[in-house]
Amino acid sequence: MDPNTFRREGHRYIDWLADYFEHIEKHPVRSAARPGEILSLLPAGPPDDPESPDSIFGDFERIIVPGITHWQHPGWFAYFPANNSPVSVLAELLTAGLGAQCMVWQTSPAAAELEERVMQWLGKMLGLPAEFEGVIQDTASTASLCALLTARERATNFKGNLEGPGEKLVVYVSEETHSSIEKGMKIAGYGRNNLRIIPAGDDFAMLPEALEAAMEKDLAAGLIPACVVATLGTTSSMAMDPVEEIASICKRFGAWLHVDAAFAGTAAIVPEYRDFMRGVEQADSFVFNPHKWMLTNFDCSAYFVRDAALLRRTFEIQPEYLKTDADSQVKNYRDWGIQLGRRFRALKLWFVVRYYGVEGIREMVRQHVALAREFAGWLSQDSRFELMAPVNLSLVCFRYNPGNLQEEELAKFNRGILEKLNNSGKVFLTHTSLKGKYAIRLSVGQRTTGRKHVELVWKLLQEYCGHPA
Amino acid sequence: MDPNTFRREGHRYIDWLADYFEHIEKHPVRSAARPGEILSLLPAGPPDDPESPDSIFGDFERIIVPGITHWQHPGWFAYFPANNSPVSVLAELLTAGLGAQCMVWQTSPAAAELEERVMQWLGKMLGLPAEFEGVIQDTASTASLCALLTARERATNFKGNLEGPGEKLVVYVSEETHSSIEKGMKIAGYGRNNLRIIPAGDDFAMLPEALEAAMEKDLAAGLIPACVVATLGTTSSMAMDPVEEIASICKRFGAWLHVDAAFAGTAAIVPEYRDFMRGVEQADSFVFNPHKWMLTNFDCSAYFVRDAALLRRTFEIQPEYLKTDADSQVKNYRDWGIQLGRRFRALKLWFVVRYYGVEGIREMVRQHVALAREFAGWLSQDSRFELMAPVNLSLVCFRYNPGNLQEEELAKFNRGILEKLNNSGKVFLTHTSLKGKYAIRLSVGQRTTGRKHVELVWKLLQEYCGHPA
Repeated sequence: MDPNTFRREGHRYIDWLADYFEHIEKHPVRSAARPGEILSLLPAGPPDDPESPDSIFGDFERIIVPGITHWQHPGWFAYFPANNSPVSVLAELLTAGLGAQCMVWQTSPAAAELEERVMQWLGKMLGLPAEFEGVIQDTASTASLCALLTARERATNFKGNLEGPGEKLVVYVSEETHSSIEKGMKIAGYGRNNLRIIPAGDDFAMLPEALEAAMEKDLAAGLIPACVVATLGTTSSMAMDPVEEIASICKRFGAWLHVDAAFAGTAAIVPEYRDFMRGVEQADSFVFNPHKWMLTNFDCSAYFVRDAALLRRTFEIQPEYLKTDADSQVKNYRDWGIQLGRRFRALKLWFVVRYYGVEGIREMVRQHVALAREFAGWLSQDSRFELMAPVNLSLVCFRYNPGNLQEEELAKFNRGILEKLNNSGKVFLTHTSLKGKYAIRLSVGQRTTGRKHVELVWKLLQEYCGHPA
Repeated sequence: MDPNTFRREGHRYIDWLADYFEHIEKHPVRSAARPGEILSLLPAGPPDDPESPDSIFGDFERIIVPGITHWQHPGWFAYFPANNSPVSVLAELLTAGLGAQCMVWQTSPAAAELEERVMQWLGKMLGLPAEFEGVIQDTASTASLCALLTARERATNFKGNLEGPGEKLVVYVSEETHSSIEKGMKIAGYGRNNLRIIPAGDDFAMLPEALEAAMEKDLAAGLIPACVVATLGTTSSMAMDPVEEIASICKRFGAWLHVDAAFAGTAAIVPEYRDFMRGVEQADSFVFNPHKWMLTNFDCSAYFVRDAALLRRTFEIQPEYLKTDADSQVKNYRDWGIQLGRRFRALKLWFVVRYYGVEGIREMVRQHVALAREFAGWLSQDSRFELMAPVNLSLVCFRYNPGNLQEEELAKFNRGILEKLNNSGKVFLTHTSLKGKYAIRLSVGQRTTGRKHVELVWKLLQEYCGHPA
């Protein structure tokens, strides 16, 4: 593709995206595609000869777009947000165009040093201790796996890497902790049998006394409490584990404390919400995802560690073909994580923070939180609805519960409501289970979500549930 | 950023990239930035208030671009290629703009089903057995880690996930295997002590008889040969391990065979080069990186497995909040790898294969291989130069060796040549160590590299080494 064709096609793609952003509400939020439908439209084999840009772009519009679930739709209330922003998309375009593979400093000094700087910015924005050092990971799954591995190595005095983890290292989570931690501890060789699932209280936050008891018991049995994962903003209900109390317990037992704030972390940028972060300054590692709620397109996960030397020692490998003259003076981020290859992800973070300014990001978070609170207010004034968890930040868990139905019937009815909401094409919400009870989740976090979109959910709910007597 | 501003800025970015592609040779290939230079130009803290698009873009040009090492420069002969293409960049733009997080089928059916289809296309293009199923990973580091984990689980009958890997599982590599395997086996809890490094022959390929002897010895000692990693196209010298012989040995011992063809795999698309793939049909898993030599911008790694059920069983976790009605009928790729979150990477692969056609990709590979052979020919006709390894595909390892210098002096002299080549700004090559000897590597694989760029390396070499007597 010569530069002029690229120019012409590029303008066309940009124009298409501008229209897409402007008219995104004409698409159903959740794709209506049926299993196998897209696959059947795609040829079984690759073309031998080149196809025209028109034909490729036409198929994109005809086959792919109807199969997309539109995460950037303002009616997105599902799972968690993955909000992007136009400026972040443009930065990603530059990253792709430059095509630099940023495995070591020499393979793009600007990428390494910008990463160092923007991670310092993020640390300041969140109020993290100055000694925390940051590195960009792809996802929180990967960042948490890094934490589990560093914890493993610290607990074994780096013999884990040599001899394997052994059978004595124990990891502690709450019953509300994200599944990626169980997955990560299995990957890291702890063994699922050494995962302790600590009960949560009525607020779905980890019970520190139960944690302490479990650690005591393991220690008495000759096991080694190696790592505790505390969550700030659980996936199901945005519950906040009491990090400060957990940190004291970890200190007593010499356990690594990893704090997973993948979703909620962005809210710490707002001073009046930052209270939930109390104790984080005592953590060994901390992760939050700018690709969730901070206008940065997927993927971009911000991982911070108190002692970067432990992280590097866990991962570093120095084959001859990767040695460079600059090694002693620079950060080679390949030793700060699992993958050798690294995309230039710092660029979009830099663009986003500068384009919105810290105040602009705060303003967005405040609006989302206000909308969630307003919605929760409407629910609590209608006796047929039940809030299923404390409303923290931007997430509301609820169900329809007129009071005369059994649990099973309630679950069935609410599943029906959820399906109707999502079939409307106007909004997309998802569900969870809280203490065994079915709950619908409304997560407010899309950049363009406004009051009218939350009102629409409420209006549809009224419609599907009948108006109050 | 309103749609019109996005449109205006987007056109500006596209135009900048079109110019960048056209005039990339005005930049030095390897950035001349000194350690800390970029960092010192970046403010210590984030701006509170928004900054203008002009100011952000201006800083990108002023601060970032001089700190970029230009992987897309036609004078790129370093490490390995990471060639992108305009059409791939445009596809990445759409992926970023759609901003879909493709963790499960429901969160974008088109992403899941396009991934299934393009991976079938790639399998056909490489001549892989029809029963191999594919999944896109970020990098070969991650894909190989998946292989090591699945091997671990198969060898322990899935008790590894529950009880930890134990201390008996052994992994076999050659002395030329990529460092990511050692890293991965440490992550997976095998323990570095259970890594056997099998010697390579004069062609730098693994010696199968040495592999067999090592496995015998381990078995006799009560250990379990769990996984062998064979490389097609080693990083240092593009050596080809004898997969067919290794496969028979693996079968005898019941060991998992993972084939790492991260770099060389693309060459299997060319029928006349495919011979090196003999035996791959007997492997358990196979990885190659379209983001290296197949015009697809980083990151995009193609991972294939013979038995996808083993892969899924290694990773699957099913929390309530991720369950969907479609689960029984679709592929949820979150269970096919480490990360939960997934970018829509299949789109760029689809665009690339269609835009170039299989023939177009073959043509590029043929040209690169021809250029490498031509360069090797020039070297072998000049008695002052020494080829340091057999020339496979697109990589040439060589050194200046007039015959009257000791090893140490030779290394020093060649380091000096390499530094001069790279300081020219016109080309970028890197080095390696082969059987303890310093070697300069010329890896041909950038999309726009032509004969004149390879000739320039040769001309510069003549200049730095003095003309032959």
